[in-house]
Amino acid sequence: MRSKHALGPRTDSPARGVLRCLAAAVLSIAFASQAAPPKPSTLTATDVLAQSAPSDWQPVDPENTLYLELESGRVVFELAPEFAPKHVANLKALVREKYFDGLAIVRAAEDYVVEWEDSDGKRPVKTAATTLPPEFTSASSAGQPFVRLPDGDIYAPEVGFSGDFPVARDPKTHQRWLAHCYGMLGLGRDNDPTSGFGSSPFVVIGHTRNLDRNDTLIGRVVQGMELLSTLPRGHGPLGFYEKLEQHVPIKAMRVAADVPAAERSEVEVLRTDTATFQAYVEARRSPPLGWYVQPAGKIDVCTVRMASRPRAAAPAK
Amino acid sequence: MRSKHALGPRTDSPARGVLRCLAAAVLSIAFASQAAPPKPSTLTATDVLAQSAPSDWQPVDPENTLYLELESGRVVFELAPEFAPKHVANLKALVREKYFDGLAIVRAAEDYVVEWEDSDGKRPVKTAATTLPPEFTSASSAGQPFVRLPDGDIYAPEVGFSGDFPVARDPKTHQRWLAHCYGMLGLGRDNDPTSGFGSSPFVVIGHTRNLDRNDTLIGRVVQGMELLSTLPRGHGPLGFYEKLEQHVPIKAMRVAADVPAAERSEVEVLRTDTATFQAYVEARRSPPLGWYVQPAGKIDVCTVRMASRPRAAAPAK
Repeated sequence: MRSKHALGPRTDSPARGVLRCLAAAVLSIAFASQAAPPKPSTLTATDVLAQSAPSDWQPVDPENTLYLELESGRVVFELAPEFAPKHVANLKALVREKYFDGLAIVRAAEDYVVEWEDSDGKRPVKTAATTLPPEFTSASSAGQPFVRLPDGDIYAPEVGFSGDFPVARDPKTHQRWLAHCYGMLGLGRDNDPTSGFGSSPFVVIGHTRNLDRNDTLIGRVVQGMELLSTLPRGHGPLGFYEKLEQHVPIKAMRVAADVPAAERSEVEVLRTDTATFQAYVEARRSPPLGWYVQPAGKIDVCTVRMASRPRAAAPAK
Repeated sequence: MRSKHALGPRTDSPARGVLRCLAAAVLSIAFASQAAPPKPSTLTATDVLAQSAPSDWQPVDPENTLYLELESGRVVFELAPEFAPKHVANLKALVREKYFDGLAIVRAAEDYVVEWEDSDGKRPVKTAATTLPPEFTSASSAGQPFVRLPDGDIYAPEVGFSGDFPVARDPKTHQRWLAHCYGMLGLGRDNDPTSGFGSSPFVVIGHTRNLDRNDTLIGRVVQGMELLSTLPRGHGPLGFYEKLEQHVPIKAMRVAADVPAAERSEVEVLRTDTATFQAYVEARRSPPLGWYVQPAGKIDVCTVRMASRPRAAAPAK
């Protein structure tokens, strides 16, 4: 039989859409478990992005963009120097001294992290620092950009977005920190908190908010995430690969600004200080009725899923 | 240089462990952002499982166990008939009429779901129902097992565990439902809520709690999750594969009870109605100082990560 069954909304003809919407509205009332169900958004998140203006997006600064070059392709990271200036500077120093070139991804822990480092410990650090004071949190102040998500959070008093990064804050301690959401880039460390100087970057591929404020996060993946999330998992302790031949070679890491313009991956990210972003969050929180019969009316900071896309080439002069 | 830097605690010698623990304790005080930081657990979650008794585990009933046989290996599911009896029975009927044998995984949406179905719609349903009333939620009552997680949740008034499934409840409406955590098994559907009869099973591979109460969940992966989570992602709309040659063939689906005993994968799951489970949750919530300098003191229902393991063979008589 023809199976059309799939999870999540699909595109539909307008007429069928109206009928389905009505049917879903009736079902929504039947299934509603709250006296006042959340009001559904009129647009899907996909619609919101499709209808966005060019000004809703901002390019990522090449000086704050890193490339991880694998045999399978390029992973692009946006750095967050406003949260961890020392660690961002030191990782860029390591990248610029080609510390990572020829090393490998050595760990892929299921529902947790992917990590790369010098597994045999012979690679010299030439110019970068090898210890750094932790930047697990930083000072929070009124002038900083912060778009608060009012939906609540169990790990922090406040969550939201600064630029396009998921952020948590504590108004009592006046501290803020990047949240360990899917795709975040951090710097692995040993037990000594000053040891996370950058030689062991990791990317979150699962549920890890319980790591918040225990290591230094410095950015996030804005393109190529699946090159990391689909890596074979390691079966040694902590998800390290057990055999050398399982290691995933790193051809190079580069700061985008150091790469010839023609070879760059230009990426832009959805701005969070816009009405479009508010509509996007609302569409994630309370999607239109149709496939959904009971919108959650809530969205957690990691499930908002910040949007990024390849940047359209500038028109030829 | 020798790099030991990695995310997450590592094993350590006792003497070094004491020193590190002291150092971390000092740092913990320095970094603590709350007046009363959470009291760290004395054991890691790994320690708790290693010290568990055989009675802390329970075998999964072969009649409630499904196998998804892929060329890469076997994925094992535990079903939850107490939450969705009609859908569990109907999926087993489909499996037993060999509906899925020779079909394929057709969708792998990044940070979302993997799904399989009959993509060309020619496979007949022989014995199973092709519509079913939704079991998105079910009645909650006092006699049901429920180990509440007191840490809070933004999507539901109450969360916790029934058996080894992550569960949400609403005491006002007296409804409960399975939570869309990583590894949960659900039944995809079209816009019509009665259409999720079982022909399009999906597994959560990302952050999807916002789907709660919008489709019928019926179980979870207890072995072989990485065979699904590492699949190449689809780049068509909604993460469907765009080309037939990307489809991941399904050799067969089987109810474990129908498989000769010698060919079964016997799995046991951590019981939740035990002191060991409480210690496990506490170790996840507030891990020992050492690598951690500031335990979160909270854990969300999906990040608890229910434990399962191959069942030791019964001793020969």
